[in-house]
Amino acid sequence: MSYDPATHAGLTFFDARQRFLDGADTPRDYLERCLETIAEREPVLRGWVTLNEAGARQAADESSRRYREGRSLSHVDGMPVGIKDLIETKDMPTQMGCEAYRGNFPKNDSAVVRALRDAGALILGKTVTTALGFLDPGPTTNAFDPRRTPGGSSSGSAAVVGAGMVPMAVGSQLVGSVLRPASYNANWALKPTFGALNRGERLGYSQSHIGIHANSAQDMWHAAAEIALRVGGDPGHPGLYGPLELPDAKAPRRLAALHTEGWARADDAAKEAFEQLVTKLRKAGVEVVQRSDNALVELLEQAIAEASALSLRLISWEQHWSLENLVEQHPGTLGPSLVRQLESGRQMTLQAYRDCLLQREHARQRLAALAPHFDACLTLSACGAAPIAAEALKTRFPTGDVAFACASSLLGAPAVTAPVLQAEGLPLGAQVLGFAHQDAEVTAIARWLGGFARGGAAD
Amino acid sequence: MSYDPATHAGLTFFDARQRFLDGADTPRDYLERCLETIAEREPVLRGWVTLNEAGARQAADESSRRYREGRSLSHVDGMPVGIKDLIETKDMPTQMGCEAYRGNFPKNDSAVVRALRDAGALILGKTVTTALGFLDPGPTTNAFDPRRTPGGSSSGSAAVVGAGMVPMAVGSQLVGSVLRPASYNANWALKPTFGALNRGERLGYSQSHIGIHANSAQDMWHAAAEIALRVGGDPGHPGLYGPLELPDAKAPRRLAALHTEGWARADDAAKEAFEQLVTKLRKAGVEVVQRSDNALVELLEQAIAEASALSLRLISWEQHWSLENLVEQHPGTLGPSLVRQLESGRQMTLQAYRDCLLQREHARQRLAALAPHFDACLTLSACGAAPIAAEALKTRFPTGDVAFACASSLLGAPAVTAPVLQAEGLPLGAQVLGFAHQDAEVTAIARWLGGFARGGAAD
Repeated sequence: MSYDPATHAGLTFFDARQRFLDGADTPRDYLERCLETIAEREPVLRGWVTLNEAGARQAADESSRRYREGRSLSHVDGMPVGIKDLIETKDMPTQMGCEAYRGNFPKNDSAVVRALRDAGALILGKTVTTALGFLDPGPTTNAFDPRRTPGGSSSGSAAVVGAGMVPMAVGSQLVGSVLRPASYNANWALKPTFGALNRGERLGYSQSHIGIHANSAQDMWHAAAEIALRVGGDPGHPGLYGPLELPDAKAPRRLAALHTEGWARADDAAKEAFEQLVTKLRKAGVEVVQRSDNALVELLEQAIAEASALSLRLISWEQHWSLENLVEQHPGTLGPSLVRQLESGRQMTLQAYRDCLLQREHARQRLAALAPHFDACLTLSACGAAPIAAEALKTRFPTGDVAFACASSLLGAPAVTAPVLQAEGLPLGAQVLGFAHQDAEVTAIARWLGGFARGGAAD
Repeated sequence: MSYDPATHAGLTFFDARQRFLDGADTPRDYLERCLETIAEREPVLRGWVTLNEAGARQAADESSRRYREGRSLSHVDGMPVGIKDLIETKDMPTQMGCEAYRGNFPKNDSAVVRALRDAGALILGKTVTTALGFLDPGPTTNAFDPRRTPGGSSSGSAAVVGAGMVPMAVGSQLVGSVLRPASYNANWALKPTFGALNRGERLGYSQSHIGIHANSAQDMWHAAAEIALRVGGDPGHPGLYGPLELPDAKAPRRLAALHTEGWARADDAAKEAFEQLVTKLRKAGVEVVQRSDNALVELLEQAIAEASALSLRLISWEQHWSLENLVEQHPGTLGPSLVRQLESGRQMTLQAYRDCLLQREHARQRLAALAPHFDACLTLSACGAAPIAAEALKTRFPTGDVAFACASSLLGAPAVTAPVLQAEGLPLGAQVLGFAHQDAEVTAIARWLGGFARGGAAD
């Protein structure tokens, strides 16, 4: 059965709350329906590392009571959620997809988990990550075709949302780890401005981000906003800006269409889907400008032309001392992508790292230069539909090519992927990428795009 | 016996290396002398939480062999060092002065520990920290008077260096945790530019810093430079700038004498010591300008007038989610200063935190405005000699008043304390505070000050 973005309807939560308030449904019943879907699909999907059904049921009952008594806590009160297994949870181990962390159980909630719990969300389980959030895959399969990769590193978070097991899951993105798997699994996803959502104990990389996967713009934004309200952003950062409610849809007047390093590696179906979207936008009166039309766009394209290689170099310096620790303590546990990173880190010098930082800053300034002239940038979230896992495994990118997703990491810019396209009858995300701290603006444009691409009015 | 900065000579390492190279001494023998001092003084000093004598002896033998074979690794090859017990070490627990972390043993080296070990240093032991690096003291006593506090939170690192047990120890500063204890224990200490020395796993605060305690400017700088060479600064930061060798002494032409919030709380002996130093500097032709003479200095003084209160507010937001975790998992383990912080954090909002960040940024810009006009700033490192511990315990600052030391944390500015003053026959540090990334410049001026204050030429 072919995926059609115009008719696909994933499991959402925002539209269930009124029935909780009316007494027509309860968070406990909602949770039980999620558990039924999990029971049905998990044997093939394999998106979860750990499930805490008892804990979630208890939290659901407490939430049900709050709704009954008219004192619900937030937009996410009663929402069952998955947490990427890189992120600490007090009631489940955090094993990072890596043998060296088997049984690792710090018994603390990371900042986002603490915030979600305080907001009433049900921390249902830990979702599969690639090893240490890199490129070496876990067991998860794609929600729309089990022969295909779910993407990574937020493999489980994207897949369990795509499969309708939960309405929202937390992921993280270092290179392309939120936007790409979200694209492959028809998620809405927010990769916020760098530092805008608190990374808790996971501050070791200068361009990693907490991301939110959901089946609707509403659940995506609500989760992000409720987290920011309670634990803000990273230390020293002002945290996510925007209202608690999903921003109203906003039609853009002028968009920069970015090719990034991805266009040369995108498949024909993806390129065609993107060009059809651009044509449709132009017909609707949106000005869409690309590198050949505009010198500022051309300069940005040049600055991000090697975004993934530059990102991997930066990261290799930042992680080399901790990877050295790991290989000493747990020899032989690193997969090929991490071995490559360690080798790269061993070659790096502090001066080479400084040069990379300057290149990154240069790219960020070129993005900032577009702000007065464009509402946002538009691009794809992946080079095509999710590749067949067995084939991807033979390439440098075993969970799919990071290309289109990576620029947002390098730029530290807010980006939302909207599941409005398809390629080969499988999901493909359109990416709205904006300017620092304009997460709400980017979300508003992506929301509009969601309605526009379905051919109707904005929702 | 009264402390005299002109004649006091602490245990140093840089001047021992030539004898290692000549074969007249070995790192193993140097270590054994350190262990003798520890055996003699530790029963009163109580500066160590854990000692790894066997590991240090083995590392010393390896270092001795390297010197014998003419292949020593660095300026710190063979140097016995203490590591503040907030910082992870693969071969010793990291217990953070806090019951909740008793037995905590992550078996990883933090970035600075990894770097020091790779440079040949001997990781001899973990030094006492106040609980979680806050204000609630551990058992350590002052190296120059056991009735007095060693200061905090780097209590053990400062005291074991002051007592000549090791030539160098690693500390950390969030508010005033390096410069103040260094002042109380006659250490040289570098609190670098924010982000300039890699904090490893300890990135949870936006103004904490790794600091270096030593008995000489040489050992202080060598340790910092060897760390930066190998693991650089925090992720996203360019790391410490400067040569591997101690920068040459540099006579300043124009200094801004800062009173900070400390002057109103300083004791008469400290104020007199500082004013005598200023008088002596002026006689030697150094222009020393204070707030009443200069509008830019006045504006900076205003911006840092409540540096410690502002710092504690910022920190209370940054730590509130993790302290909430801790009190849930380990009820009753927080001392009074952390209970106050948690209460403050619970009152904070994201918007209030943003306001604090803006105030901090404003102060940093006022410091930057001085850069074209001054070589550096000069102030004290503490309000006086180390207070009597039993008396300090009755105050808000049980390990001594953080006042003079705190501005450097808020400003993220490099600062060196030089043990060139005395008050009441006890050590008192003069602080050279400079501009972002001018750690080497600040060190050069502090080195000059060391020679100048002893009345001779710069060393």
